[in-house]
Amino acid sequence: MTTALASLTNHQIRLASRPVGMATRENWEFTAEPVTEPEAGGVLVKTLALSLDPAMRGWMNEGKSYIAPVGLGEVMRAGGIGVVIASKNPAFAVGDTVSGTPGVQEYSLVREAEIKRTGLARIDLTMGTPTQWLNVLGMPGMTGYFGLMDVGQPKAGETVVVSGAAGAVGQTVGQMAKIKGCRVVGIAGGAAKCEWVVKELGFDACIDYKAPAPEGAKRWDAVRDGLKRLVPEGVDIYFDNVGGEMLDAVLARINRKARIVICGAISQYNNMTAVKGPANYMSLLVNRARMEGIVVFDYTERFPIAIQEMAGYLKDGRMKSKEDVVVGLQTFPETLQKLFNGENFGKLVLEVAKA
Amino acid sequence: MTTALASLTNHQIRLASRPVGMATRENWEFTAEPVTEPEAGGVLVKTLALSLDPAMRGWMNEGKSYIAPVGLGEVMRAGGIGVVIASKNPAFAVGDTVSGTPGVQEYSLVREAEIKRTGLARIDLTMGTPTQWLNVLGMPGMTGYFGLMDVGQPKAGETVVVSGAAGAVGQTVGQMAKIKGCRVVGIAGGAAKCEWVVKELGFDACIDYKAPAPEGAKRWDAVRDGLKRLVPEGVDIYFDNVGGEMLDAVLARINRKARIVICGAISQYNNMTAVKGPANYMSLLVNRARMEGIVVFDYTERFPIAIQEMAGYLKDGRMKSKEDVVVGLQTFPETLQKLFNGENFGKLVLEVAKA
Repeated sequence: MTTALASLTNHQIRLASRPVGMATRENWEFTAEPVTEPEAGGVLVKTLALSLDPAMRGWMNEGKSYIAPVGLGEVMRAGGIGVVIASKNPAFAVGDTVSGTPGVQEYSLVREAEIKRTGLARIDLTMGTPTQWLNVLGMPGMTGYFGLMDVGQPKAGETVVVSGAAGAVGQTVGQMAKIKGCRVVGIAGGAAKCEWVVKELGFDACIDYKAPAPEGAKRWDAVRDGLKRLVPEGVDIYFDNVGGEMLDAVLARINRKARIVICGAISQYNNMTAVKGPANYMSLLVNRARMEGIVVFDYTERFPIAIQEMAGYLKDGRMKSKEDVVVGLQTFPETLQKLFNGENFGKLVLEVAKA
Repeated sequence: MTTALASLTNHQIRLASRPVGMATRENWEFTAEPVTEPEAGGVLVKTLALSLDPAMRGWMNEGKSYIAPVGLGEVMRAGGIGVVIASKNPAFAVGDTVSGTPGVQEYSLVREAEIKRTGLARIDLTMGTPTQWLNVLGMPGMTGYFGLMDVGQPKAGETVVVSGAAGAVGQTVGQMAKIKGCRVVGIAGGAAKCEWVVKELGFDACIDYKAPAPEGAKRWDAVRDGLKRLVPEGVDIYFDNVGGEMLDAVLARINRKARIVICGAISQYNNMTAVKGPANYMSLLVNRARMEGIVVFDYTERFPIAIQEMAGYLKDGRMKSKEDVVVGLQTFPETLQKLFNGENFGKLVLEVAKA
């Protein structure tokens, strides 16, 4: 333990109240604490970058989900990358770059008993950059990988449609599906995102759900028309990050034995009214199709193998990654909103400190 | 060909107009035609009993489904049992009892080319009675069998909930699930049906969705409360014949890796407004659960094996069957309505002639 440590201040962002609709600055409390030394077996990590994800909105809600909600007054949960600055655990040395669940704060003290639960692990920077470790090699990449491969089960020649195509999960799903020999059509908001997934990531086509609509067009007509025009062969796998009317539009165009991977419903997370269920769900019956949820935490034991595979694709250029990096812990409330208003372009990362 | 044949009249019921909401007598046309001799390779069948099924409502609608709609002016499609009264096909002899798709008429002429498509096959009355051949050994039984076994994949000790429990499919599903070692809770409308599935069929419990509600109770509270009280362990398999709010209530109570078998949505078939999608579908994500459609026609090649198994259960008493037999072709319009207002109790059969 260096004496310098005691002089450090840990700035934190805590959940002050449960948001109704979109979370705003009023829902957060900004605190500062002195940094303390790890206990025996523990590790002190300096946060470098945090992963901002749509799922965070769910963690702010009370009630049963796949993971416990963040308690009021607690530091907001967040995955991230950091560097070990003090260690009383032989598995971690000062200077190691690690991934884990530091939370929205500058420093995190990980007790020995929490190392496994929070997923603290050294990462290999020869396999990917720190922000790639939050993207393709991190939770979004793993979500895309196992959601597509295990739940979607793509076969070469099939057509895969993915919503949130320019987002962190969507970009992995689309590129993986291309690698597996599928035809891939993305759905994204805006011409720039659509152009990027086609030209840079190699998707076969992309539907811009924000495309200027002809007079009299209804909301989501762009998606319905785009599916008709760009996916005339029908949808074999739909990887859904968005939910709502978009899910309904795709359900109307699925093929026999289609698989709908339910990964998220970003359109519904900030709802102040009741969630709108997919009215076209009977298409599952007509088409003998399946709709199934994916939670990435179920696959942690297989992460190392998937990471190895993905790092290979990053190296050989078959997989590209794009991160949208915003600097400064204090920007967290507004930066998080970018996920929900469609402003982020690529995996949203909050840079807390330089490596 | 006997000369008597020429003197017979075939009364038929044809689809006159596509119903909006519930089909009424006005949607049907009553016709009569002379009975004619089969051509080479063909068979003439006298209808004994017809199977009335919720799916028939879907066949009356225009538009793509798992099977072509019945055309306007066509004899209404219906599965049924009959007896061969003239044959120019060596596979069928006069006097054979057969199952097939005679339609809502007294006599059906099956051309050689249509024998396979309409599923015309001799049935063995030592395996079950004619009405059992429309129930447990027929389409509803096969739907229940393959929906539960192939899509639901029950494991001993799991909890299976089935809606429409006293209906044709529901009674098979529940009894099969008991045979496979599951705990089974039905949902049915009315105390008599609930008592029957528990006392006669051996279900562990049954929720009466029509139970008298306490003041201020909302519609479907009986289902929500019943699930809480009678299925505290949560639902591993839900076999859904009803859809709508009932599906939503169950989605709120599913376990990890639950399977929702979408077999029908009888609550929605006569809708004049848009179908209400399951608002709780994100429970599929939270619980890594799967919702999948079943269409019985996909399993025709395996029917003989399933029928053999089911006939064994009928023989040894582990499977009981109940048919609700209404007499008279001309009652068809009103008899069909019984399916949708919850009046039928057991598999609904229209007796057209005595054997």
